[in-house]
Amino acid sequence: MNATGLSLAELARGLRSRRFSAVEIVDRCRDAHRRSEPLLNAWKTWNGDAARLLAQSVDKLFDSGMDFGPLMGLPVSVKDLYGVPGMPVFAGTDQALPAAWEAAGPVAGAVLRQFGIVMGKTHTVEFAFGGLGVNAHWGTPFNPWSADGHRTPGGSSSGAGVSLAQGSALVALGTDTAGSVRVPASMTGQVGLKTTHGRWPLEGIVPLSPSLDTAGLLTRSVEDMAFAFAAVDALLGRRRPACAMPSLNGLRLGVADNFFWDGLDPGIGESVSAAIELLAGAGARIVPVRVPHCDDVYEIFRQGGLAASELAAFMNMEFPARIARLDPVVRARVAAAEQVSSVEYLRRRQVLQACAQRATAVFADVDALLAPTVAITPPLLDGLADGAAYARANMMALRNTVIGNLFGWCALTLPVGLDARRMPVGLQLMGAPMTEARLIGIGLAVEARIGRGPEILGHAPALA
Amino acid sequence: MNATGLSLAELARGLRSRRFSAVEIVDRCRDAHRRSEPLLNAWKTWNGDAARLLAQSVDKLFDSGMDFGPLMGLPVSVKDLYGVPGMPVFAGTDQALPAAWEAAGPVAGAVLRQFGIVMGKTHTVEFAFGGLGVNAHWGTPFNPWSADGHRTPGGSSSGAGVSLAQGSALVALGTDTAGSVRVPASMTGQVGLKTTHGRWPLEGIVPLSPSLDTAGLLTRSVEDMAFAFAAVDALLGRRRPACAMPSLNGLRLGVADNFFWDGLDPGIGESVSAAIELLAGAGARIVPVRVPHCDDVYEIFRQGGLAASELAAFMNMEFPARIARLDPVVRARVAAAEQVSSVEYLRRRQVLQACAQRATAVFADVDALLAPTVAITPPLLDGLADGAAYARANMMALRNTVIGNLFGWCALTLPVGLDARRMPVGLQLMGAPMTEARLIGIGLAVEARIGRGPEILGHAPALA
Repeated sequence: MNATGLSLAELARGLRSRRFSAVEIVDRCRDAHRRSEPLLNAWKTWNGDAARLLAQSVDKLFDSGMDFGPLMGLPVSVKDLYGVPGMPVFAGTDQALPAAWEAAGPVAGAVLRQFGIVMGKTHTVEFAFGGLGVNAHWGTPFNPWSADGHRTPGGSSSGAGVSLAQGSALVALGTDTAGSVRVPASMTGQVGLKTTHGRWPLEGIVPLSPSLDTAGLLTRSVEDMAFAFAAVDALLGRRRPACAMPSLNGLRLGVADNFFWDGLDPGIGESVSAAIELLAGAGARIVPVRVPHCDDVYEIFRQGGLAASELAAFMNMEFPARIARLDPVVRARVAAAEQVSSVEYLRRRQVLQACAQRATAVFADVDALLAPTVAITPPLLDGLADGAAYARANMMALRNTVIGNLFGWCALTLPVGLDARRMPVGLQLMGAPMTEARLIGIGLAVEARIGRGPEILGHAPALA
Repeated sequence: MNATGLSLAELARGLRSRRFSAVEIVDRCRDAHRRSEPLLNAWKTWNGDAARLLAQSVDKLFDSGMDFGPLMGLPVSVKDLYGVPGMPVFAGTDQALPAAWEAAGPVAGAVLRQFGIVMGKTHTVEFAFGGLGVNAHWGTPFNPWSADGHRTPGGSSSGAGVSLAQGSALVALGTDTAGSVRVPASMTGQVGLKTTHGRWPLEGIVPLSPSLDTAGLLTRSVEDMAFAFAAVDALLGRRRPACAMPSLNGLRLGVADNFFWDGLDPGIGESVSAAIELLAGAGARIVPVRVPHCDDVYEIFRQGGLAASELAAFMNMEFPARIARLDPVVRARVAAAEQVSSVEYLRRRQVLQACAQRATAVFADVDALLAPTVAITPPLLDGLADGAAYARANMMALRNTVIGNLFGWCALTLPVGLDARRMPVGLQLMGAPMTEARLIGIGLAVEARIGRGPEILGHAPALA
């Protein structure tokens, strides 16, 4: 059995038919972990031995005909912002947070209640405040696609994408405030879903910016995403989401003629355009659209947005003594927030709300909006030592994703090719608020046309 | 017919039996207006002639058996923060706001849809930002109970209470962000209801502090409040509130042994205590309670709370050119907000939320919490010319009411006596969030025991 070659749905069926066991699947992940950690450095806390014991119990439950839900027996990596009982929460800081943060909230709880198997906690940028994935306390996970040095894995869910590329987990829990699920998914050749703010509860997750924080998922394919999203979402509301795949023929796919295409690194625009050509060839209607206010809201983001103030307030309330010990790249942004007046903060909220309302009107004319997920090649870590260089790269890494956060949309990324540095390129699909199931359905149609990551990226990650 | 001596329910019945007409009721209000305006100065915009025309139409509708709802044909005063089509909105400023503000939101719409008759717009403190009722642009309404000079009517719904005392309206729409319904109701011998934040929509009302703003009502008795509240509330949700009157016997009435009783002006504590004695005599259980965190949240309020920043942000967005022309007492508070950092603003929100959660636990032990509504005698206007004197009196006027806003409660005030200056004293009943119908029911029981305003205040307002 090659567990990692099968879809989650196939694995779930195989577990129930007892064609293979949860222990076999978990052991595959443990093997993958053994092969490339600590080189890739995806994991802050590895839970492999306990996961294997849990897998044994799960197999006994399957043997006796018990079924706790679709994720039962499937290996999950959890970003180290989420509480999971029995595992410390570092949230990327230098020291574990108080034990109260280990309690599981609704999203992690949805995995645990189904007997999903938590393989451990993956690295994150400190307090999730950065899009490249760097962490001065614990090191920056290695992007397994890098063949020419240590390139960033994307962040802030920096270990999440790497854990999937590594094969040490098959589903990853991440969070996305400005792109923190989509950027690492795109940079590591995975699929990532940013949910609509407010769809999934934030309890049990260390906050960065409660106004914009969202829980999200990374998977190895859109097909897996449809499976995992439905499994989690069904436990968090009265919904029964069905990610039905529409026909590409006649689907209205909007392509912004502004903002998202400026200043792309070599090979990124080419890969995404080639994918869009394929979709047009299959009958999709490619609709040029002007998305209003992208520059306005991105400018607010560049000035610290809401997150800098909200993280500073959280730190002051909960961990004042830790502010001085913050990772320099985070500390600089938190300190700057003290200079933002309450009136300016509220102005930003009002501008964002007004712009979001107008921009969301584009979805009257298109079923989804397409763009490159990330504008830049994952940079070499060596080039980021200088604070100004880091800040520039960080802003560019998040530019195309943060628009969805600031406009209140949901969004999906899936791999469509390689850039000039032979690093993965993601295609971003953006949808109106609360249309996740529809968006994933469109993603399924796209994936069916252009192929899955492992097929289209053409070679395995160099280091996994 | 003496319309003003009858309850709203009696008037509503009489209109439907055609025992009297809407024109007769409206003419009574017009007569009252003629007698004491502009001396009392309750009204910014008087709509008497148009109201009479509408009353004629309403009578024809009644004649033909039409019934648009309980408020049909009843005269209503509307605080000049609400949009009402065809009437300018000044919001207490020196110049009418753009005409877009004249559109009716859901609360004013609930009155208009029932063919309630809007007699005009009542004065307000500029942008509702003050508890005494002063207004440098349009003058301060005269408290009709004053026999020894111009005493404040309470604010910010400064004309609302006066319009009822005057007899020029029988129901008043107000708003309450820190006490702006209850303070004027208490100071003018009326009944006032502050609804739970979020219960009634704020669209169509000029904002002061969207985090805390609430729409509310003033009436001449609790019986009228039960009638008017049900009439409005039924149109704003799927609720059918029934303000059933409980027996006083065994009712658990909490009386705080802290905060609310400090430094009361002469005669206020005595009047409220005497009322509580009467309730105990009727079998109510008087439960001493310690309400936690009152001092903590009041201190945040004294520093400008959330409102100063939120009003400043609104002014900057909508009316930057008007900031320099603000009433000095408002301008000072708006200017101070620029010094409040975003981090401090968010800290205040977090502290308020945490304190509210703990304080609201008191309602596990009591059915309502009782306190004096206002700690001070309505001050003489002459004593408020100095900015510091104004600020002190304003903070004291709002001290006992703002606690309910900051803790997210609903609250009711009803008159219970006169203070040492022979000015009205209000008893405040506070209840858990969203328990308005229950709280008004308790208010009915209190009113049934101790009498209505006109009976227990013992004399008519000096000037109405």
